[in-house]
Amino acid sequence: MTPDFEQMWRDLVPVGRSATTGGYRRQPFAAAERECVAWFVEQAQARGLSVERDRFGNLVAWWRPEQAAGRDAVLTGSHLDSVLDGGAYDGPLGVVSALAAVDALRDRGVTPARPLGVGVFVEEEGSRFGLACLGSRLATGATTWDRARGLRDRDGVALEDAMAGAEVGSADLLEGVGCFVELHVEQGRDLVDRDVPVGVASGIWPHGRYRFDFTGEANHAGTTRMEDRHDPMLGYAVTALAAHKQARLSGGRATFGRLDVLPGATNAVPSQVTAWLDARADTAEHLDALVGSVARMAQERTDRDGTSVTVTAESVSGPVEFDRDLARRVAGARSRPAIPTMAGHDAGVLSTAGIPTAMLFVRNPTGVSHSPAEHAGTADCLAGVDALTAALQELTA
Amino acid sequence: MTPDFEQMWRDLVPVGRSATTGGYRRQPFAAAERECVAWFVEQAQARGLSVERDRFGNLVAWWRPEQAAGRDAVLTGSHLDSVLDGGAYDGPLGVVSALAAVDALRDRGVTPARPLGVGVFVEEEGSRFGLACLGSRLATGATTWDRARGLRDRDGVALEDAMAGAEVGSADLLEGVGCFVELHVEQGRDLVDRDVPVGVASGIWPHGRYRFDFTGEANHAGTTRMEDRHDPMLGYAVTALAAHKQARLSGGRATFGRLDVLPGATNAVPSQVTAWLDARADTAEHLDALVGSVARMAQERTDRDGTSVTVTAESVSGPVEFDRDLARRVAGARSRPAIPTMAGHDAGVLSTAGIPTAMLFVRNPTGVSHSPAEHAGTADCLAGVDALTAALQELTA
Repeated sequence: MTPDFEQMWRDLVPVGRSATTGGYRRQPFAAAERECVAWFVEQAQARGLSVERDRFGNLVAWWRPEQAAGRDAVLTGSHLDSVLDGGAYDGPLGVVSALAAVDALRDRGVTPARPLGVGVFVEEEGSRFGLACLGSRLATGATTWDRARGLRDRDGVALEDAMAGAEVGSADLLEGVGCFVELHVEQGRDLVDRDVPVGVASGIWPHGRYRFDFTGEANHAGTTRMEDRHDPMLGYAVTALAAHKQARLSGGRATFGRLDVLPGATNAVPSQVTAWLDARADTAEHLDALVGSVARMAQERTDRDGTSVTVTAESVSGPVEFDRDLARRVAGARSRPAIPTMAGHDAGVLSTAGIPTAMLFVRNPTGVSHSPAEHAGTADCLAGVDALTAALQELTA
Repeated sequence: MTPDFEQMWRDLVPVGRSATTGGYRRQPFAAAERECVAWFVEQAQARGLSVERDRFGNLVAWWRPEQAAGRDAVLTGSHLDSVLDGGAYDGPLGVVSALAAVDALRDRGVTPARPLGVGVFVEEEGSRFGLACLGSRLATGATTWDRARGLRDRDGVALEDAMAGAEVGSADLLEGVGCFVELHVEQGRDLVDRDVPVGVASGIWPHGRYRFDFTGEANHAGTTRMEDRHDPMLGYAVTALAAHKQARLSGGRATFGRLDVLPGATNAVPSQVTAWLDARADTAEHLDALVGSVARMAQERTDRDGTSVTVTAESVSGPVEFDRDLARRVAGARSRPAIPTMAGHDAGVLSTAGIPTAMLFVRNPTGVSHSPAEHAGTADCLAGVDALTAALQELTA
């Protein structure tokens, strides 16, 4: 007998959880995330699913009944990595729900007429190598291996080296996939406001990561007069405030959550401040306008300070409109609310690559995500499993 | 034959120099700094000086002629550690000049009538364990070992563990020391403006390090509306700008050069920003006023953002007035200019502990310090050695 949803959830809860922050640190190709992946493979094998891997570390556990041979496959699943000190639900909820949906289909005596795969994409968060949805980007060809292999983490370890110990394969996991359905915890309070446990996604806002390199001149913090300094921290500080204000005025999003300061000594004026802007807006034009206005304010201040700034777009994702027909079939008879999301997802990457894609969201009472406070109640999670089961039954029929 | 100043300088130049930045990374009790210390011990032994160590890793190479027995000692020297990506001169210039002065005295056939020691204090910069002048603070008792032993570096290594491999002793290095003279590269442009190669210090500005802990709430950078955030980065940004402005208006110094952001992910609103303020002013009252006004502005903004801030004084040093008689004797017949300094020094700690203390400064044409651009010309360095030699000859007579 395979474990039920709640047992699977209890299995995963302790893995990679920080005792001090209560947040998860499941960085790709490091111990905690690998443990999650090993757990997934075990679960797949316990269900007689056949696990295939691609060369990038993505994997799919396939249920391929004989009658399904030769027909387009239905893929579901999500990811098992987390942001630094993230919550328990972002990613794992979609994977655990998919396994639970397979169990529910079997309990109902359903044999799918199409192959059904439960996928796990690596480095969805981009929290180690800086490129979000790295696994699905590589799987779809949106990012080439030649570009990705040299990406480095904070400690200078290249992706290729980080992957050295990981089990990989040579499968093309998306070959023959006719559609993708990803279940995910909601990362806002839309469903709370609507008082429903499960919704479907209408689309994903365009978003990007932009590296701001502020360069000045290191100097002694005591002896250098304020007026003689070329302190890049000032340009950064003005830019962080400007980004917040511009996003607020425009209804977009702008966040500086990661920062490197060189030399990083208390008693030295910094020589360099590198800061990463995460920006999002409802249209590509609004996103460009938002980032452009922030960059202009950075430029104005650095000109005044005798420092300099360069802005590099590290990754930009255009808007995603999910397939409406598929969304309708996934919503089923319940006519679930269709809500936009400001968060990137592997589903967005697959959709952009031309695979009809849908997402189911499960209500998050806190509205908070990328934080230990992220949450979904058990009843809502089980409602999510029901919705996913119904959708997969419909799509694999 | 012992090597001359220039040869000693060439010995040290490559040690701990970063090939990418050109700056020095001589962190206490790590490889490069230990190599500098080993070099110093070798130099002392080549000169027949006897090396004594205390339990904190400080050391003094003693020249104790028979005729000097029982008389108060004269101590000179400086430190060999650097800030992260610091310059070559800050610290080592005082140590190398002291060894060169010993050589010069011997060349002149001078035998000191008092013991003459060349000292090396550990962790003067506080760049690893966060407490500047740590070695001299421990040697004078200004900081207790019970407080210091648990200090941790960025990687969480405790001072006590970092010291595990270091050779230490049990000497009380300051016992019987009648005065201390430290030669140091100038960390400003006062001597450049006066067009003289060597000056003496009048005093040290009061200064301190204050840790600002800004606490907010981690959240998803895409899905959380700007108006729903409690982002501690905004409080920090306002505080960094306020510190610069207040210091500029008051003629003091305020610098934020070190920062930790949690969780530190591009796509997460931070939960915590910890920032270290280095602040200095001409009087203790002005320093308090400066830090107080910065803390008030931090408080005002965090109140608005629904975040919080706490300010912890990690180390505060009161003003130092160097011994005027000693300064006059060290300046000699040349009536060298007496200049204040805004930088902390072991000399300040020894002075505060009641040991008559003086400093000699060597002109730095760039005025820049704590940076690879820090510099002193060879002719000026040799003028510094001459000045130190004359001072030591006078003081040990």
